[in-house]
Amino acid sequence: MEEAGYPLLEQINSPFDLRKLPEEKLLQVCKELREFIIDAVSCNPAHFGASLGVVELTVALHYVLNTPDDKLIWDVGHQAYGHKILTGRRTSFHTNRKYKGISGFPNITESVYDAFGVGHSSTSISAALGMATSFKQQGLTNRQVVAVIGDGSMTAGLAFEGLNNLASMQANVLVILNDNNMAIDPNVGGFSEYLVDIATSHTYNKVRREIFKGLGKLKLAGPRSKEMIVKINNSIKNLLTRQTNIFEGLNVRYFGPVDGHDIAHLTSVLKDLKDIPGPKVLHVITKKGKGFKLAEENQTAWHAPRGRFDKVTGLFEEEVGSDKVKPLKFQEIFGHTIVELARQNEKIVGITPAMPSGCSLNIMMQAMPDRAFDVGIAEQHAVTFSAGLAISGMVPFCNIYSSFMQRAYDQVVHDVAIQNLNVVFCLDRGGLVGADGATHHGVYDLSFLRSVPNLVVSSPMDEIELRNLMYTAQLPDQGPFSIRYPRGVGSHEIWQRPFEQIQVGKGRCLRKGEEIAVLTIGPLGVKAGRVCEALASNGLQVGHYDMRFVKPLDTDLLHEVFSDYKAIVTIEDGTIVGGMGTAVIEFMADHGYHCPVKRLGVPDRIIEHGSQMELFKEVGLDMESMKQAILEMKAALGS
Amino acid sequence: MEEAGYPLLEQINSPFDLRKLPEEKLLQVCKELREFIIDAVSCNPAHFGASLGVVELTVALHYVLNTPDDKLIWDVGHQAYGHKILTGRRTSFHTNRKYKGISGFPNITESVYDAFGVGHSSTSISAALGMATSFKQQGLTNRQVVAVIGDGSMTAGLAFEGLNNLASMQANVLVILNDNNMAIDPNVGGFSEYLVDIATSHTYNKVRREIFKGLGKLKLAGPRSKEMIVKINNSIKNLLTRQTNIFEGLNVRYFGPVDGHDIAHLTSVLKDLKDIPGPKVLHVITKKGKGFKLAEENQTAWHAPRGRFDKVTGLFEEEVGSDKVKPLKFQEIFGHTIVELARQNEKIVGITPAMPSGCSLNIMMQAMPDRAFDVGIAEQHAVTFSAGLAISGMVPFCNIYSSFMQRAYDQVVHDVAIQNLNVVFCLDRGGLVGADGATHHGVYDLSFLRSVPNLVVSSPMDEIELRNLMYTAQLPDQGPFSIRYPRGVGSHEIWQRPFEQIQVGKGRCLRKGEEIAVLTIGPLGVKAGRVCEALASNGLQVGHYDMRFVKPLDTDLLHEVFSDYKAIVTIEDGTIVGGMGTAVIEFMADHGYHCPVKRLGVPDRIIEHGSQMELFKEVGLDMESMKQAILEMKAALGS
Repeated sequence: MEEAGYPLLEQINSPFDLRKLPEEKLLQVCKELREFIIDAVSCNPAHFGASLGVVELTVALHYVLNTPDDKLIWDVGHQAYGHKILTGRRTSFHTNRKYKGISGFPNITESVYDAFGVGHSSTSISAALGMATSFKQQGLTNRQVVAVIGDGSMTAGLAFEGLNNLASMQANVLVILNDNNMAIDPNVGGFSEYLVDIATSHTYNKVRREIFKGLGKLKLAGPRSKEMIVKINNSIKNLLTRQTNIFEGLNVRYFGPVDGHDIAHLTSVLKDLKDIPGPKVLHVITKKGKGFKLAEENQTAWHAPRGRFDKVTGLFEEEVGSDKVKPLKFQEIFGHTIVELARQNEKIVGITPAMPSGCSLNIMMQAMPDRAFDVGIAEQHAVTFSAGLAISGMVPFCNIYSSFMQRAYDQVVHDVAIQNLNVVFCLDRGGLVGADGATHHGVYDLSFLRSVPNLVVSSPMDEIELRNLMYTAQLPDQGPFSIRYPRGVGSHEIWQRPFEQIQVGKGRCLRKGEEIAVLTIGPLGVKAGRVCEALASNGLQVGHYDMRFVKPLDTDLLHEVFSDYKAIVTIEDGTIVGGMGTAVIEFMADHGYHCPVKRLGVPDRIIEHGSQMELFKEVGLDMESMKQAILEMKAALGS
Repeated sequence: MEEAGYPLLEQINSPFDLRKLPEEKLLQVCKELREFIIDAVSCNPAHFGASLGVVELTVALHYVLNTPDDKLIWDVGHQAYGHKILTGRRTSFHTNRKYKGISGFPNITESVYDAFGVGHSSTSISAALGMATSFKQQGLTNRQVVAVIGDGSMTAGLAFEGLNNLASMQANVLVILNDNNMAIDPNVGGFSEYLVDIATSHTYNKVRREIFKGLGKLKLAGPRSKEMIVKINNSIKNLLTRQTNIFEGLNVRYFGPVDGHDIAHLTSVLKDLKDIPGPKVLHVITKKGKGFKLAEENQTAWHAPRGRFDKVTGLFEEEVGSDKVKPLKFQEIFGHTIVELARQNEKIVGITPAMPSGCSLNIMMQAMPDRAFDVGIAEQHAVTFSAGLAISGMVPFCNIYSSFMQRAYDQVVHDVAIQNLNVVFCLDRGGLVGADGATHHGVYDLSFLRSVPNLVVSSPMDEIELRNLMYTAQLPDQGPFSIRYPRGVGSHEIWQRPFEQIQVGKGRCLRKGEEIAVLTIGPLGVKAGRVCEALASNGLQVGHYDMRFVKPLDTDLLHEVFSDYKAIVTIEDGTIVGGMGTAVIEFMADHGYHCPVKRLGVPDRIIEHGSQMELFKEVGLDMESMKQAILEMKAALGS
């Protein structure tokens, strides 16, 4: 990996080293940093396009700011690889997103340069405002606080709340709007169109260049005149663009747009802005994937390449056994199935908050563009919009990643459940997600949804069940209905079976046994089934029940189980606090059953990143751990 | 109440009756409607100022729209009394907010005219967009969808998400921005300042009046010329105001501002707007409390008057025994205590999302204005802003109503808990809140917070404990810490005792007993204590333990309890699904205890409005129900 050599980069072990370089070397630093990222990600697949797009911005920021005293907050954090490499993690960067390796996101426990832990979008302005306010309270008035936020992240309400408060508090925060007109998928909404308008105004850009040239000489005269230049610049823009500025409307000074790949100009602008107090936005135009042609051309696919690739040809490594028909991902099953259902039921519409390719709603967007809606990064809106659709006669399938659903909890309660509306929530990436780590594990959903009245909380064991639950959820007279499934592939090669209605609140017996019963929810049931099979072949007959529904619970089945068995093991890919296993012991307490119950699930602590297999092993949800739990229960029964 | 007489209003049993009246009668309808609201609220205290402010708007909307086919969505719903009175609920309006009476908010189960159930703010645009999209899918293209939203509600991220999507989908929705520069407390943020800017531009308003006069004649020429008039009007405004329009920046047409108390003009403008397709905002300037002088002058106090009042003098009825020193509200204890603590610890700051008078942070805002922040209706921002403050050295007390905390769940998990930051969450109005009803009950918090790692989940039994928990939470080396308390008064007259540190995760024994132990969390413990006392005087010795912490659980105490008693009753003012009682039975299952446990709490269904006492009785949390549960347990033990 190091054959190309990164002579300058290798001398940079912290931003202090970077700042020792003369400004004319920065171009070379950028070149090496970009090359380093391409080399690293081609060997160790990870997020890609975003970091390539901000190479110059990253170098300029660390060059101009006095990090770590000055605070630099990367919104979401997909784009922070360059930042990590410049801040002491170059030599550990090959462990990026790997088990026990460095995190794919800024993480405060990893480095003092990671000012705020991120992963979910649109937190940066609010966090920056908190820091700036804190510094003001402490009299640390020379500290700079900078939030770098993408135009996609600006569509989330939290970012607007932050901006609105930043404006009214007039705190000393620089918001860098990294405008590449993309989130993971192309960006959505009036705001996005507005930014394109500004950035593509040819008249404006042309005149702006002239003005900048003309005013350049004034630059020597200190902060006031710098401010003046930018003000003049803005006034011209205001006259020339279709409408004046949303940021200035909110009383936040707006500067730009500037070319985010012009390191010299960026450095100079950032230096100027340090002297201008108060809230300000610098609008930087960048290209996602910059410097890697294929990534520039297909930004969604190269947001996070699917495997190792040749950095010259862009070809992916042959996957072993890739000829074989593999089970599809749950995501693909969802995408094909919603189209199939929507062809049968004209009331069905699909909604995704900015994850059409991630959740595969893009299949529906292509097949029936009028009936599938990408609402941008806006989970709260996605749910209330779905409620509005449902109350007026449609059946919305609102697909949200489990961990992002945390952002729309109130809307689930207040707009959907209280009104008992038939919104179908497809909770993608339920459970441990793997390399994205702590911020992205979808491990709380079964708990926080289970306490919501009227809501059906289900999880299919496999893709056949997923299809049947989706079919069931859109039948007449259903209320709020959640269907949770994990990231990753299913367990069947032939999945396209005819739909069958599932009775809501009914689980199923997969294997009868003696003494011990295993109750599972979701795809871990497949592994648990194999464990039970293996134990049976060794003479230990363990019962296996797929609960299917955490709510309503199958009380008939549970009465049967508690009558027929002496001990229970529950297994779920979610927190042990308040999930399916807890529902089972609530049932026990309510009905006066008393028997040993061992609950396997995600323990009550923050789980970091790694492969799903590694994490399952760590938390005791791999097949070996399941087997041990059953054997321990057997031993405890003493029979 | 009816002595004044409402001759016109009494003929209006639905908007169809209203629409039969000639336009010149509307002024009289408004007069009677306003009088009716004042009469009704003076006898039956409820929300007040907001509905008075939109009397003309309400009459104009139902006059012009074809409700209920056209959809009218009132954001939050505090302002919908006039709407209720005009839509068949005049004669039942005296039951407003009473047990089994009509709801204080629009509610879809109550009337076909209530197009969308509300209570929490800022949902209306998203819901309206869902409806408009649904009508488009169904070919119902002549349906109008109108969202009426206050300027305060516009500061919440959800409203921005809705507006951003409305813009990009170009759906046929009219957003009426009801601008009174107030939420419950004065409004906050750059956006609010921006609206004041537009609305108070004298030059603009003067020229606007002239132009309107001059262009009036064109009005006869049909929709296109109507559109033109308003466009011209806007262009003039754009030239004359400091900056052009945020809404137009987002590609949503902006009309206004118009005088919200001029019924003739409002009616005319609304008729014009029906002919203009696509997304549009009508900016209406209103006065909260309009027509009741005291309410106009003190809008916060009269948002919802605290008791019955004389509608002429504005004097409140003498409260029985009001001379007596009463226990203060938990809210007041919070307000005084945070100031006391902040005087000792300079790191403490206070944050409220738009509820300074409701939660009593206004006491701190007055005492130390630099250290208490009202961030507007922006719960997500409130939490992430707090995280930013905490990570850079402050100790933020973030006070959020329990049911509004549902809106910041992801921020609690992602920004505070994962990073293990010492943010103190004061969860006001935990449990059943009374008259505000289903949307406002804070009954899910113990469940949804309990599953978050690192987070302390506590609830004080009384105000002394509240103070000590607040004291404890701000000591060095605490992590995320939530303290939940209810709406209403405490149980002590003398509350200002010296602070004592409470060991985190430690409950306390309040009464030793035999066989049966009662475990409580929060102020219901006071009532449970009285029940135990009464039973003891009848010879039944029941143990009573105040858990104090739902997380971490006091496992030492629980080992003791499960060793010493034969049966347990748990009592909490929160959902029975996943709360404190559930935590106790999880402990049992994990430690192999087997004994009968009866969990008392809020059942797993939507609870409507009523007084707290009535609701406690309904759900079995009154003292009589507690006694019965204990006696039944005693009987079941058969001893």
